[in-house]
Amino acid sequence: MGLMLERFKEQWARISRLEQIIAVLGWDMETYMPEGGVKPRADQLALLSDLAHQWLTSEETARLIEGAEKEVGGDYFSDAVSMIRVARRAYDKKVKIPRDLVARLARITPRANSIWIRARANSDFRQFQPVLSEIIELNKEQAECLGYAEHRYDALLDLYEPELTTTRVVRLFNELKIHIVPLAREIADRKDSVRTGFLNQKFSTAQQEAFGMLVLRDMHYDFTRGRQDRSAHPFTTSFSPYDVRITTRFSEDDLLSALFSTIHEGGHALYDQGLPLDLVDTPLCQPISLGVHESQSRLWENIVGRSRGFWKHYLPILKTYFPGQLDSVDQEQFYRAVNQVKQSYIRVESDELTYNLHIFIRFEIEKDLIAGVVTATDIPELWNAKYHEYLGITPPDDAQGCLQDIHWAHGSIGYFPTYVIGNLLSAQLFRKAVEDHPLLPKEIEEGRFDALLSWLRKNVHSQGSRYTLGELAASITGGDIPVAPYLGYLTEKFHDMYR
Amino acid sequence: MGLMLERFKEQWARISRLEQIIAVLGWDMETYMPEGGVKPRADQLALLSDLAHQWLTSEETARLIEGAEKEVGGDYFSDAVSMIRVARRAYDKKVKIPRDLVARLARITPRANSIWIRARANSDFRQFQPVLSEIIELNKEQAECLGYAEHRYDALLDLYEPELTTTRVVRLFNELKIHIVPLAREIADRKDSVRTGFLNQKFSTAQQEAFGMLVLRDMHYDFTRGRQDRSAHPFTTSFSPYDVRITTRFSEDDLLSALFSTIHEGGHALYDQGLPLDLVDTPLCQPISLGVHESQSRLWENIVGRSRGFWKHYLPILKTYFPGQLDSVDQEQFYRAVNQVKQSYIRVESDELTYNLHIFIRFEIEKDLIAGVVTATDIPELWNAKYHEYLGITPPDDAQGCLQDIHWAHGSIGYFPTYVIGNLLSAQLFRKAVEDHPLLPKEIEEGRFDALLSWLRKNVHSQGSRYTLGELAASITGGDIPVAPYLGYLTEKFHDMYR
Repeated sequence: MGLMLERFKEQWARISRLEQIIAVLGWDMETYMPEGGVKPRADQLALLSDLAHQWLTSEETARLIEGAEKEVGGDYFSDAVSMIRVARRAYDKKVKIPRDLVARLARITPRANSIWIRARANSDFRQFQPVLSEIIELNKEQAECLGYAEHRYDALLDLYEPELTTTRVVRLFNELKIHIVPLAREIADRKDSVRTGFLNQKFSTAQQEAFGMLVLRDMHYDFTRGRQDRSAHPFTTSFSPYDVRITTRFSEDDLLSALFSTIHEGGHALYDQGLPLDLVDTPLCQPISLGVHESQSRLWENIVGRSRGFWKHYLPILKTYFPGQLDSVDQEQFYRAVNQVKQSYIRVESDELTYNLHIFIRFEIEKDLIAGVVTATDIPELWNAKYHEYLGITPPDDAQGCLQDIHWAHGSIGYFPTYVIGNLLSAQLFRKAVEDHPLLPKEIEEGRFDALLSWLRKNVHSQGSRYTLGELAASITGGDIPVAPYLGYLTEKFHDMYR
Repeated sequence: MGLMLERFKEQWARISRLEQIIAVLGWDMETYMPEGGVKPRADQLALLSDLAHQWLTSEETARLIEGAEKEVGGDYFSDAVSMIRVARRAYDKKVKIPRDLVARLARITPRANSIWIRARANSDFRQFQPVLSEIIELNKEQAECLGYAEHRYDALLDLYEPELTTTRVVRLFNELKIHIVPLAREIADRKDSVRTGFLNQKFSTAQQEAFGMLVLRDMHYDFTRGRQDRSAHPFTTSFSPYDVRITTRFSEDDLLSALFSTIHEGGHALYDQGLPLDLVDTPLCQPISLGVHESQSRLWENIVGRSRGFWKHYLPILKTYFPGQLDSVDQEQFYRAVNQVKQSYIRVESDELTYNLHIFIRFEIEKDLIAGVVTATDIPELWNAKYHEYLGITPPDDAQGCLQDIHWAHGSIGYFPTYVIGNLLSAQLFRKAVEDHPLLPKEIEEGRFDALLSWLRKNVHSQGSRYTLGELAASITGGDIPVAPYLGYLTEKFHDMYR
């Protein structure tokens, strides 16, 4: 290994470890930290975020990347060439954001978060509007620093899903809309195909947890390199592939919520645990993007976890966890219940199909906010009009409307479209995995996920961030991310259920 | 506030926050971290330890301290003058240790720790001896860097208990020995004064935990600024007065162990929670020393928790937590059981009296190791001979002998004497608190600790590190730390019990 590459890797490892520590502080904050710890934790996080930004954008880092670029040669996808390429992209992006703006973004987050919590509790968007306006302005400023070819929103999209553009999202979403909107309407008229009365019971949270752990073990989530805790909102966090933690929450009134969120976070965690161990602390030991991450969680949660095959194996087991409570439920009834399509106000509680409509709405509003076509004060009216247009319902209040998501309060604008990218990619990946392993659906019926996980490990996880999203799609299916596999999957599933 | 002082405080806050983050990483490692996380955690800790050392010993810090020294004036014990004085001491000490030595000390710890765990499991000191020899050499090297007037060991003592010297420890320990050794022998002949058969039962750990929480609440441990978790070895850690956490461990075979360790850690935690909130992130928002810290834990655990008055209030309550299990036990019998004196091999399981003998032994061995009079290979023989001399017993194996403590594996030599300093100070403080509040013992009989805590808050906790140990003792009792109050306390208590 050349001297510059070696020194570059040392420098990158330092930056990477800072990011890991930031993640530990974040995990603790969401799980165990007592309320008194908020203020010092914000100071600790601000210190490390500033330091990480300084180190990444330092002249030293620039010099090492440049030196290593001259030094390394060979195959475009080799470890050495790839890691310098990925580091260069990160550097070029981050160096455009002034340290002062990083600090202002970091400082507004805890404040916006606490204002949002209060505003949501009061169901009053007006309380949140001023700080949200500040966040929008900061994001506009950030976009101007980052630069863009066509739309200012492109610069923000690129933070979460590199190379995605507004034009491309509009095109993809339009392709989806013309199928999903009428399909959802059509289904709304056939509600009686699904009976979910058996879900209106109390389900022991201890038993829910035990069943979730069983499923995680079957999925090969490695508990020697991870753990599950409880938090207000389920999430996955990774301190390196050696320590990837998930959280969940339980309600005895809701059997399905914790279960599917456990499978969802388990899917995220398998990706993080599967990142290349021999490349820890290099730029390649990272997920490609939020969209690719979401493809993993949604593949496990929806395509696997909401399939007939999955419940063929797991429903009899689930019944033993809740003796007497699910005896009269048959497999088809359960399958329909976990896939029930319902026009609902809340994104995170929505079904697989209408979920996309919730994202379309957020994207359209964000795009116009960043373009300056609309302002924060317009949001409640826009939001409600779009819910009426896409879902045929009007949120009764702000809490169930435009105050429901935490993303904006976190300062994140441009994040939502990655959820649909995840949906699209999940169907494409699963289709290819089944092509390569025709017995895979049969294995799922037996609660065995070895072939699926091996395929994902080989084609996605172990590649780290060697490929971009486009390169990953090309390496697997030889093309871009088409909507056809996902639309085919949705149409087949829901036509069958609601025929 | 002057410009230099202001800039000094900013710099110190950054260093202080790094130390807080190191503590968070340590807490997670001991409580929830999965086993896979060890290696990356060691890397994260090494990074931050190096950074904290670099920042503290930087030219920038030196310049700011120097500038502030010229700028601030006034009362020796004022905030500004005190914080610069404390910072100067820390800087002068740390700047003498080369960065390379800090790194070698940091790197040896995880290795020595895992070797020690294995050696202890195998009860074979020879497995631990080579790495311990390395640790001794590193500590000698550190002592030479730090400098000392008389004994090389002085430099190490000074790390944990500033201004304590070998000569002073020898003198203090000799004063104690001539009373404690014969007292312990005398008691050994009167074993039948205590009957502890009722402790040989299974005690629900859930009920043990619930009772411990009740006591912590009564002690005014603030759960909005702290929490209790489980770990292999109980400890207290502070991320700032806003977030002070304790841990414990439970065994259903041992009613007393978790209970007294909870009170002990609670005492530590009250000190950390009581540090001056208006001085957070300054050099004054720290405990004075390990000895002063230990005075707090031991005051609560022993002087309060093992008193007749305490159990007058709590025994009836404890009985309700274990219905039917303690009905026949009266208050005097319980009091004697929690104060039973027994010649035992294990320091952490020993009683209040013989505990000191365990420390004398460790001090004498450490002193000679660092002086170079003996080497690591001599330890088992020395250890066993001294146990025979002081306690009249000979450890049957290394696990119950010289491998029992984790301190050396942590790289800490010079730490043990602070435990006896804590004992001495605890008696002195309690005596003065009762002088100031004669009703205090009466309040303890009612499970009320307000007056005691207020006294400790005012005289110790809220002072932070404004005083040295000597200055604290002088401010409270007008003198040095005498052995008389502690010896008086011990003699009265155990003569009464075993008369």
